[in-house]
Amino acid sequence: MSAARSWVPVPEGSPFPVQNLPYGVFSPPGGAPRVGVAIGDRVLDASAVWAGTPLGADLATGSLNRFLRRGRGEWAYVRRRLTDLLTGDGQRRLVEANLHPLDRVTLHLPFEVADYVDFYASEAHATNLGRVFRPDGEALLPNWRRLPVGYHGRAGTVVVSGTPVRRPAGQRLGPDGEPFLGPTGRLDIEAEVGFVVGAPSRPGEPVATGAFADHVFGAVLVNDWSARDIQAWEYQPLGPFLGKSFATSVSPWVVPLEALEHARVPVPPQDPAPLPYLEEKEPWGLDLQLEVRLNGAVVSRPPFRTTYWSPAQMLAHMTVNGASLRTGDLYASGTVSGPSADERGSLIELTWNGRDPLRLPDGSERAFLADGDTVAITADAPGADGIRIGFGDVSGTVLP
Amino acid sequence: MSAARSWVPVPEGSPFPVQNLPYGVFSPPGGAPRVGVAIGDRVLDASAVWAGTPLGADLATGSLNRFLRRGRGEWAYVRRRLTDLLTGDGQRRLVEANLHPLDRVTLHLPFEVADYVDFYASEAHATNLGRVFRPDGEALLPNWRRLPVGYHGRAGTVVVSGTPVRRPAGQRLGPDGEPFLGPTGRLDIEAEVGFVVGAPSRPGEPVATGAFADHVFGAVLVNDWSARDIQAWEYQPLGPFLGKSFATSVSPWVVPLEALEHARVPVPPQDPAPLPYLEEKEPWGLDLQLEVRLNGAVVSRPPFRTTYWSPAQMLAHMTVNGASLRTGDLYASGTVSGPSADERGSLIELTWNGRDPLRLPDGSERAFLADGDTVAITADAPGADGIRIGFGDVSGTVLP
Repeated sequence: MSAARSWVPVPEGSPFPVQNLPYGVFSPPGGAPRVGVAIGDRVLDASAVWAGTPLGADLATGSLNRFLRRGRGEWAYVRRRLTDLLTGDGQRRLVEANLHPLDRVTLHLPFEVADYVDFYASEAHATNLGRVFRPDGEALLPNWRRLPVGYHGRAGTVVVSGTPVRRPAGQRLGPDGEPFLGPTGRLDIEAEVGFVVGAPSRPGEPVATGAFADHVFGAVLVNDWSARDIQAWEYQPLGPFLGKSFATSVSPWVVPLEALEHARVPVPPQDPAPLPYLEEKEPWGLDLQLEVRLNGAVVSRPPFRTTYWSPAQMLAHMTVNGASLRTGDLYASGTVSGPSADERGSLIELTWNGRDPLRLPDGSERAFLADGDTVAITADAPGADGIRIGFGDVSGTVLP
Repeated sequence: MSAARSWVPVPEGSPFPVQNLPYGVFSPPGGAPRVGVAIGDRVLDASAVWAGTPLGADLATGSLNRFLRRGRGEWAYVRRRLTDLLTGDGQRRLVEANLHPLDRVTLHLPFEVADYVDFYASEAHATNLGRVFRPDGEALLPNWRRLPVGYHGRAGTVVVSGTPVRRPAGQRLGPDGEPFLGPTGRLDIEAEVGFVVGAPSRPGEPVATGAFADHVFGAVLVNDWSARDIQAWEYQPLGPFLGKSFATSVSPWVVPLEALEHARVPVPPQDPAPLPYLEEKEPWGLDLQLEVRLNGAVVSRPPFRTTYWSPAQMLAHMTVNGASLRTGDLYASGTVSGPSADERGSLIELTWNGRDPLRLPDGSERAFLADGDTVAITADAPGADGIRIGFGDVSGTVLP
């Protein structure tokens, strides 16, 4: 079977073939924000396709939330209809009139973030951090293989890719053992995959692993910027706070789960066996290949398929106590690191807490980020018809 | 000087004299939610007072957020005008037509919660928990006197007083050292005071202690329900998560900072001296006297004035890394406990982790909460004219 093709030209290597159709929010020059779908190097104004209908009104807003709230049946219908429009000739004039060149539009934060949760689901990452911080103890704490460890982050400082990140100040310990206030000296990244909740759940009703795709609409790339020195001083006993809360960047495109159907893989073997509420009936591991670039140079290729807990298991755990989901909830995997040294998703791992600085192509070295550095994370996945499904990128530049 | 009085009758001992005027959201029978102000045993429909104006439109909604976003000048104007209407005779007919008996209206969550942060600011509480959990170590960790320790909680499960709280299930360790899933056996309360952000701040711009009242509109009572066994198993190394995220109750009335002017006191002596960004130019400790009732019986009287860090210091710390504030942000003090055994704001402290159960007037004992138990927390404060300013209460009943 040959790959389905759109009559909209899709350049070789584009992350956005017609098998992808990720959703975002864009403004054309002089226009208001609205929902669009990326195809090749264009964006299709989805609000215009349904102009005059209630769905069109929900798409003619500055966030995906009203569309997300419509639920799985509607997500499938819209995707199917857009696929038909972009592969068939029937309404080519309508579509062409509403295609905008991607390089001419402004991309916005694609959804209003309700609650933001960050997990810690990569075994290699948790092991690396355990070794760095507790060299004399067990690398993994006793609960780690029993449940997806996670915590709540700050939803109000989630920003869209491209937003500059100001180096945060904070309290940390000086070499004399006295705390002082100053800009972080250990600004780091965390390459993560985030999951966007569309359909809410009711208070008191856990969401089973099998209901994952009824609630989660799609995935984004996340860079969970981290100030390691602030984090180290503040985090006992209640966890990370200001070391993380200054900024979390997400990609402008939300890739729907439907586009990731061919990327589904079983999670790695889980031993001990998870409790029944964490068992997966069908696999929701995802074969996403991430790539981290620092000032253009690839510094890491974290494989998401090595993540110990699947996003369906994270969701089941997050709701097992009856905590309800809201449209716009974002939960991220935690740093994605593979077992190899060149698959680590944070600088604290790549440089082993600064001991082994990275050497960049320009000859400079980095233990942690310098002012002016730009970090860009991309990912792609196997899609239908042997096509690669891309996420675009999440990038940010450090301001002093 | 005699106390200002309203012509609306205020019963002896009412928490809501005209010196208070707390804001909430209510529905009259058959009517839509709108903003109201409590006076005696009535609620004045504030949206009707400004009907036909943009302010009236902002008050004719199901949350305080649009009013809160207007900022400090507008908060002062509305309070002044309501005080005039309720103490003077000029527009008595307008006011009377829009007074509703409190026992006939439905009270709603007063504001849409943006981010929810929980601090750990009571020295007695942090010391008690340190003694319970680390009997052989220092009760307070080294960072505790240097910065207000805090973490993010789940905004989507903040509920209004009166909402029943279902006993959460979760993963915890059994006596055999194996984890299992089951309803918590150690359901607890945390009596706290919460602060509601009205005016947002800009990303990258810390909010100084002196700007506290420019951003924070007022205070609520908070019960941060906690499942201690779930929390104990999950919280290393990233802090509390499911042990807290199932429900957090807040009082329906937001008491404006202006009503608490006479409750302001210096915080207890802070040694070592806080870093300059945490210094208070003017005192924002608050002399609030809390009272915790379990099934009607008073079990504790936590004094908020003993809290080590003031809410202005918490705000300055929370934003020192440039994290921005949004309208509707809620941050709570953490459990309020005084130095005496009968001033502890949680059962884990009152019963010393279950070792010394409470005996209730009906002869029953409680180490932690039983199904059907009702917890109600109230507070009052010195107000203008020697009057007491009340918070009403935050209450909830445990469902199996």
